[in-house]
Amino acid sequence: MQTQYPSALLQRAVDEFAKLPGIGSKTALRLVLYLLKQDAESVEAFSAAISRLKKEVKYCKVCHNISDTDVCRICADPRRDSSIVCVVENIRDVMAVEDTLQFKGLYHVLGGIISPMDGIGPRDLQIDSLVERVKAGGIKEVILALSTTMEGETTNFYIYRRLEYLNVKTSVIARGVAIGDELVYTDEVTLGRSIVNRTLFTGRQ
Amino acid sequence: MQTQYPSALLQRAVDEFAKLPGIGSKTALRLVLYLLKQDAESVEAFSAAISRLKKEVKYCKVCHNISDTDVCRICADPRRDSSIVCVVENIRDVMAVEDTLQFKGLYHVLGGIISPMDGIGPRDLQIDSLVERVKAGGIKEVILALSTTMEGETTNFYIYRRLEYLNVKTSVIARGVAIGDELVYTDEVTLGRSIVNRTLFTGRQ
Repeated sequence: MQTQYPSALLQRAVDEFAKLPGIGSKTALRLVLYLLKQDAESVEAFSAAISRLKKEVKYCKVCHNISDTDVCRICADPRRDSSIVCVVENIRDVMAVEDTLQFKGLYHVLGGIISPMDGIGPRDLQIDSLVERVKAGGIKEVILALSTTMEGETTNFYIYRRLEYLNVKTSVIARGVAIGDELVYTDEVTLGRSIVNRTLFTGRQ
Repeated sequence: MQTQYPSALLQRAVDEFAKLPGIGSKTALRLVLYLLKQDAESVEAFSAAISRLKKEVKYCKVCHNISDTDVCRICADPRRDSSIVCVVENIRDVMAVEDTLQFKGLYHVLGGIISPMDGIGPRDLQIDSLVERVKAGGIKEVILALSTTMEGETTNFYIYRRLEYLNVKTSVIARGVAIGDELVYTDEVTLGRSIVNRTLFTGRQ
């Protein structure tokens, strides 16, 4: 049964919230009524932050990460190693790799992965611009850090083929048993690969 | 560790979303990046719906329900029985009772319940205006439909005392075993009350 909203303005706001992924109409109503209880400045700040983000956001000309400037903080940082480029699907992956504090090179944000089921081909992604970046010189290694799904593997392979004759090393992030995981709970594909791709134990892992 | 956002605009939008109840910073980022992928009109519609709601929303002068007009649709509807008023905590409760299609009277929205722990006393609620409504005449019955918590019971009792000498019947919604529930899973207070307050079986329940 369709819930009757006492106000068209309320209904509109609830409908907008309910368009967000993972937000149903009950949660949307709860969030909207929460906002309604806040003072006018807080609600305006919420509304304005979203509006401004969409209107004013930029994407880095070099790596296509989200940025407030034409070239992002990471690409503009002279302390970063510009000879290594880590290829990721999206902005969240850049943030995830940055949070590890283990990578000091630059990034290249594809904007997705090749997925024929969703109608996403190589032309829809920032792959040509990656090839151009490599052709321009100065890049010694491209690290592929995509999802370990079928689509991710397809994209890895496609990029590998595009870079094959360009005098650049192409590597892929290690796959294996996650740290803290027990072997019995690890799926057999991952466990099998982690045995095939074992590394020498140096006592420092 | 504090996540580093690549853009201050992005961070601002994520922070605003993360203020909402039940939304953590990871969910907030997911929602913001989803919005960022939508076209400019959709994002502006989202932002505007929230801004307009807060700026233009009204509360019914009679029942204090949210409304687009000075007097809400329900209070203004001549087919509703204005001699019965159902007292509820908030807007969501009005919608919940309306959804049952079982009530054809009017409402009175308190805006909360008496809760000394949260610093909410009778003066913070629409109780005086309820008493005024009853004093103005025409109301034969006030149905108390508040939460069945300690605070709800306190508020019921407080309202009952305020209305006691005003020639109006005060009733409270039935408490008992929920329809579809098995007795073994019903808590003993509810089950005990449902036995004490049993009703005559007419074959039509």
